Amino acid sequence: MEVFLSPMSNNVINPENPLNIGYIKKSMEELERLDAESMKTAEKHPVIIILDDVRSMHNVGSTFRTCDAFAVDALYLCGYTPTPPHRDIHKTALGATETVNWKHFATTIDAVNEAKTKGYKIYAVEQVHNSVALNQFKTSNELIALVFGNEVTGVNEEVLKLADGCIEIPQWGSKHSLNISVSVGIVLWEVVRK
Amino acid sequence: MEVFLSPMSNNVINPENPLNIGYIKKSMEELERLDAESMKTAEKHPVIIILDDVRSMHNVGSTFRTCDAFAVDALYLCGYTPTPPHRDIHKTALGATETVNWKHFATTIDAVNEAKTKGYKIYAVEQVHNSVALNQFKTSNELIALVFGNEVTGVNEEVLKLADGCIEIPQWGSKHSLNISVSVGIVLWEVVRK
Repeated sequence: MEVFLSPMSNNVINPENPLNIGYIKKSMEELERLDAESMKTAEKHPVIIILDDVRSMHNVGSTFRTCDAFAVDALYLCGYTPTPPHRDIHKTALGATETVNWKHFATTIDAVNEAKTKGYKIYAVEQVHNSVALNQFKTSNELIALVFGNEVTGVNEEVLKLADGCIEIPQWGSKHSLNISVSVGIVLWEVVRK
Repeated sequence: MEVFLSPMSNNVINPENPLNIGYIKKSMEELERLDAESMKTAEKHPVIIILDDVRSMHNVGSTFRTCDAFAVDALYLCGYTPTPPHRDIHKTALGATETVNWKHFATTIDAVNEAKTKGYKIYAVEQVHNSVALNQFKTSNELIALVFGNEVTGVNEEVLKLADGCIEIPQWGSKHSLNISVSVGIVLWEVVRK
């Protein structure tokens, strides 16, 4: 594609869009989001997100928001993972604590067992031997629970023992891992995009 | 799949993994991450991330970490988007400010124009009319620059005018949008997974 500089400014003009009309943002009405009441009864993706001893309020708040956006069945907050109401969770959740079906469990083992008895398969998102690369992860519309672990130590070993499988996000960089709330978004997107 | 309760604990035993052997986490060596020096010359994904007046240090730090993990060409921080070194960026970037090729621009227009002159196509991630749903977004190995906007106001209108296209992340919930750093992770994953 050729590009050329406009004499009137330092903007590069796109010949496919020479009038620079731009794009019109959708209003909240045009986005056709559900209201909080409709969310309760709306059909959900058959996915539970389980946070296993996640420390950061920001990660919890952001996970609430992602769970709202991708309409998951439930969010299980386990162990010392902070729970609403809390000002620092609200700062990132921005009201999603009211629209996401969430529950606290004393231990992640309890949460995993509840999910299992409800028929969910358990997948830990963790960098382990015998993991499945996220892009290779296949689901056949089954019920799935995704476990994300602590910021430093990851998913607890005792929880990994109960998993039906582990999912690993392929990475090409130098650091150990992605931020938890970013990982939640990426894995959930991969599951719901199909 | 049948599940049954162990008499010794309240754990549900997975018959496919009856010994509860669990999964062994990979060490940093086994993850085979690059060191900071190798990152500089390693092949990158042909993608530039552009942050347009993003306010939060957390979003910037987390974006650095994601850019490291997915090995992108560059991260352009524009306008009042905070830049390293800063303690609050470091808290989430965890060193990725040293391994990601980044640059500050006074305006996002300048950044977009630099990317265009280098041959990158510009895609704003924004909820607009005539957007492409992320799962429909096709690239043919071309160079692409992805623009993410301010936490409240989104991508600036003047920047949208320069875009070759807009990408929208489909959502099923009640809230307006996802967290910026989560959106960066999701869109970047969609681009690099192929």
